[in-house]
Amino acid sequence: MAAHPVLLAALSLLSVCQQGYFAVQVGKARRQYKVTPPAISGPPEFERLFRAQQNCVEFYPLFLVTLWMAGWYFNQVSAACLGLVYIYARYQYFWGYSEDAKKRLFGFRLGLGALAFLTVLGALGVANSFLDEYLDFSLVKELRRRT
Amino acid sequence: MAAHPVLLAALSLLSVCQQGYFAVQVGKARRQYKVTPPAISGPPEFERLFRAQQNCVEFYPLFLVTLWMAGWYFNQVSAACLGLVYIYARYQYFWGYSEDAKKRLFGFRLGLGALAFLTVLGALGVANSFLDEYLDFSLVKELRRRT
Amino acid sequence: MAAHPVLLAALSLLSVCQQGYFAVQVGKARRQYKVTPPAISGPPEFERLFRAQQNCVEFYPLFLVTLWMAGWYFNQVSAACLGLVYIYARYQYFWGYSEDAKKRLFGFRLGLGALAFLTVLGALGVANSFLDEYLDFSLVKELRRRT
Repeated sequence: MAAHPVLLAALSLLSVCQQGYFAVQVGKARRQYKVTPPAISGPPEFERLFRAQQNCVEFYPLFLVTLWMAGWYFNQVSAACLGLVYIYARYQYFWGYSEDAKKRLFGFRLGLGALAFLTVLGALGVANSFLDEYLDFSLVKELRRRT
Repeated sequence: MAAHPVLLAALSLLSVCQQGYFAVQVGKARRQYKVTPPAISGPPEFERLFRAQQNCVEFYPLFLVTLWMAGWYFNQVSAACLGLVYIYARYQYFWGYSEDAKKRLFGFRLGLGALAFLTVLGALGVANSFLDEYLDFSLVKELRRRT
Repeated sequence: MAAHPVLLAALSLLSVCQQGYFAVQVGKARRQYKVTPPAISGPPEFERLFRAQQNCVEFYPLFLVTLWMAGWYFNQVSAACLGLVYIYARYQYFWGYSEDAKKRLFGFRLGLGALAFLTVLGALGVANSFLDEYLDFSLVKELRRRT
């Protein structure tokens, strides 16, 4: 486990700012295309931007969990690098989607790749920690039984 | 507090995979029912599946918070078991909903029950920790002293 | 870092209850205005309430991340107070929005202010921790040494 998960904390705050930035863009688009709340349908330009933000919202908890699990149980620096890739990918996705639905794919796939990578690293780290935890436990028992 | 929250970490990663799985199903349904992004309305089959996934997304942060609070401040193994129940309930909910809106109820209620249980355990653990920290009184310590 | 983040844990559980409360209100409104799932459109009263809840869902992970980062890396009590402000603001936002779309603004802005404050405190704390960890320079230690 990382003793000082300061890089993960920094990445988390950076991603919060990005999510806030996306929400601000939706607010701007609401004014630009005259889509007054609570309406969520309007011209295609607005709907694409809104869906892009909604998709980022959906995946955000997955990003946070995998970032922290990979960084905590595997390696903080690798997790932080993949986190940066994810944040970059979401930026590309958001603005790509806002231009054209097909242009969302590059960012989406890159982000999904980073997320999959983080999940695998996290799973490896957690599996290792799990074995270590229970192996230690059984070893202690074994030693006690023999002495 | 659990020194090695490895079960909570494993459950979190498992739930991330489940959320990813639900998102993949929505993607598949988009292709099957020809609902091109950014559209979110289409045949009832698609709309049910989409709403099922959206509901899982909505409740996901609540699950994560209560899982970790219950596991950290109360007991890791109980929290992990309730977490497994929640993940199973969401699976039932998702596929039930995709068949018929009424079939979502069993999974929904089971999931809500697991969530309520996790919240209660978390609240008990946090309250005990709070008393210990701020009023120097620990229920657990007290019980141990008396027995 | 806060050794016993019990206030942050309590605030997190309180906010979970609030999110659950909002979801229950949407369920009630569904019955009241006869909006059967999976439909999400209906009379304006329902749509406002639904959008209010959706907006709370969107911002919830941002609240959790900034609460914990500010509380962990800066100061737990300040973070908990700002957290209480945020929860109060969301309550005002939700019920304001349900009455009239314009009445959402007070709660929304107050909540955004609390969130911005938490982000700044978190960023300061993380930056200080980063300098301490990677450049062996702690602003806090330095200030203590000089006084």
